[in-house]
Amino acid sequence: MSAAEHGLLTLTTDFGVRDGYVAALKGSILARAPALRLVDVTHEIEPGAIASAAFVLGQAAPHFPEGTVHLAVVDPGVGSGRRALACEIGPHRYVAPDNGLLTPFLDGAFRVHELTRPQLWNPRVSPVFHGRDVFGPVAAHLAAGGALDDVGPRVDPASLVRLPEPRARREASEWTGEVVHVDRFGNLITNLVPEAAPGSEARVEIGGRSLPVHRIYADVGEGELVALIGSSGRLEIACRAGSAARVLGVSVGSVVAFRAA
Amino acid sequence: MSAAEHGLLTLTTDFGVRDGYVAALKGSILARAPALRLVDVTHEIEPGAIASAAFVLGQAAPHFPEGTVHLAVVDPGVGSGRRALACEIGPHRYVAPDNGLLTPFLDGAFRVHELTRPQLWNPRVSPVFHGRDVFGPVAAHLAAGGALDDVGPRVDPASLVRLPEPRARREASEWTGEVVHVDRFGNLITNLVPEAAPGSEARVEIGGRSLPVHRIYADVGEGELVALIGSSGRLEIACRAGSAARVLGVSVGSVVAFRAA
Amino acid sequence: MSAAEHGLLTLTTDFGVRDGYVAALKGSILARAPALRLVDVTHEIEPGAIASAAFVLGQAAPHFPEGTVHLAVVDPGVGSGRRALACEIGPHRYVAPDNGLLTPFLDGAFRVHELTRPQLWNPRVSPVFHGRDVFGPVAAHLAAGGALDDVGPRVDPASLVRLPEPRARREASEWTGEVVHVDRFGNLITNLVPEAAPGSEARVEIGGRSLPVHRIYADVGEGELVALIGSSGRLEIACRAGSAARVLGVSVGSVVAFRAA
Repeated sequence: MSAAEHGLLTLTTDFGVRDGYVAALKGSILARAPALRLVDVTHEIEPGAIASAAFVLGQAAPHFPEGTVHLAVVDPGVGSGRRALACEIGPHRYVAPDNGLLTPFLDGAFRVHELTRPQLWNPRVSPVFHGRDVFGPVAAHLAAGGALDDVGPRVDPASLVRLPEPRARREASEWTGEVVHVDRFGNLITNLVPEAAPGSEARVEIGGRSLPVHRIYADVGEGELVALIGSSGRLEIACRAGSAARVLGVSVGSVVAFRAA
Repeated sequence: MSAAEHGLLTLTTDFGVRDGYVAALKGSILARAPALRLVDVTHEIEPGAIASAAFVLGQAAPHFPEGTVHLAVVDPGVGSGRRALACEIGPHRYVAPDNGLLTPFLDGAFRVHELTRPQLWNPRVSPVFHGRDVFGPVAAHLAAGGALDDVGPRVDPASLVRLPEPRARREASEWTGEVVHVDRFGNLITNLVPEAAPGSEARVEIGGRSLPVHRIYADVGEGELVALIGSSGRLEIACRAGSAARVLGVSVGSVVAFRAA
Repeated sequence: MSAAEHGLLTLTTDFGVRDGYVAALKGSILARAPALRLVDVTHEIEPGAIASAAFVLGQAAPHFPEGTVHLAVVDPGVGSGRRALACEIGPHRYVAPDNGLLTPFLDGAFRVHELTRPQLWNPRVSPVFHGRDVFGPVAAHLAAGGALDDVGPRVDPASLVRLPEPRARREASEWTGEVVHVDRFGNLITNLVPEAAPGSEARVEIGGRSLPVHRIYADVGEGELVALIGSSGRLEIACRAGSAARVLGVSVGSVVAFRAA
């Protein structure tokens, strides 16, 4: 039983859920392919925060079954010259503006097409809501089993906009990186993926503090800081029953260092 | 493939998502018709804000496929004398209290019935949660293919409660209207639907400012105000990468003027 | 048409919806059983607030159809010694950590198994995200029709962690209890389930105020306090078009008294 048969389509946007934008998008998708099954990744990306959307989708997408289509619309340049894309990368397909949103997925070989076929779009396209009128209908087409070739011509994968890499340097046993995401718990997620054995002599330095590496949150007392390997394999700094972001006063972009034992 | 076969039912409420109210409503619907497919419009309507719910559903509902049932419960008068209604308006059906919530849909001819048949409701009806015990089960009945006649007697469409129209005046080439919604981006959405050609001499006046009409957000610099025709055809005032509501200090009900070229 | 055929699975977590955690969990579930139908109860439980999750799920779960599986993950002790459980209680099954989360359901006889069979889990289990890697896959197995016996050995129902009961005392016609939940409207929901006839001489005392018992919110004027029997049969104190929690300055744990007529 493959996911394609069940037409799974995930949605990642900065539309919020107070207004009717997400529902207009979903209605537009279901009007084209009523049997699709929609799964929200999030609609709470900060307005225009492309890198944040890329990170969140990058963490979630790999867990979905083969054949899933991921629609991502954080699109501050809507209506301007930026291209609209559909990509096939490994077992998934992605529909998004060409603004860096798909950066986490662009390693290795993949196929990418530009959305240029208005026959697949809504009859009237608002210049300020391509999510509803262009991306949504095309994602519906793909999730319902449509071919990537239908959406428009193939383009060069090397031509895609990519986000700048967060800094990451390794000198002997010292790795330097940065905080790339602060989650709802105030946990600081970094771009470092060290092979640290909890309980080793390894140390993490962040916000003027030096911490050993533990295995789980409950390894420290309430209110204490803990460094560990988070659920996506990245080095993470948390505060048990608290917010590490608040305790340390650090945020996205702050430097973190890891010194292997 | 029609939507009716897929039993689409949308939900619009002021219940919020922190408590168990939305889930109790959904459980109650699915207990009656387990195959239905539920789509949230929003549950983040300000408590009791009927006009806001009417606006949000008014923007989203038209995009859903034929046969969709829209359930809307913002019901500060729950348990009092207000009627409970089910309407068939064009290709959709609606279930809601008779408090103005359906105002955007009540143009033209439509059929409306009052919910008076307890056989369709939950066995026990809480006087303070008709959403779960009355509206939900009736919406489930309809979305599963049930007839409008089943829910209770037909009533006169002219008898329905309607929200007051926002002010709108047109004198020669000058239109006056008001802000009817502020979205999560701080965009100001008005009740004016002008045929303004972007780049024309037309001007928009709001909060002491006079603005030309542009086509897209990216037509101005970051932090600058921009007037344009929004995704629902209404005149909208935004601030690129900012909040027009904050910059202008205006909110729902504020006056806006449009002077054609 | 039973719910089991439709594979209903509800989700209650403290993950929030800004990050990719809920989607990673859902992807993980759907990768195992793509046809399941997922219903969010809430993901907005305060981080680590086990009692709050127990209350919210306790209110919502009973409304779901026979055969529904309820997955609840508020798991501050993730990766430590706490057990992971699957229970069959009446017509529903539940998957949750053994930390008190299922307390509202543990009356009467039920069957409970410990999750010890890694064959049902994700191939790699993060020590900090058992929701995604252990609970989710097991819930998917059950919701897709799998047997409780598959998940691991049966354990003694009496051995489960239970939350402390909120205080409740009855002396003649006076009941004393406490506020057990404050909802998004600021309504104060108590653990008292009195058989109070609205309009009787019964009185409710809370936060230095004495209130009669009414039937519905609209029985009092806007801004006024009202005591009534809420939608789950519990005594509730609300403020019409306002927040009783704010007006009274009380919160979870505050004492409430009910004096029968």
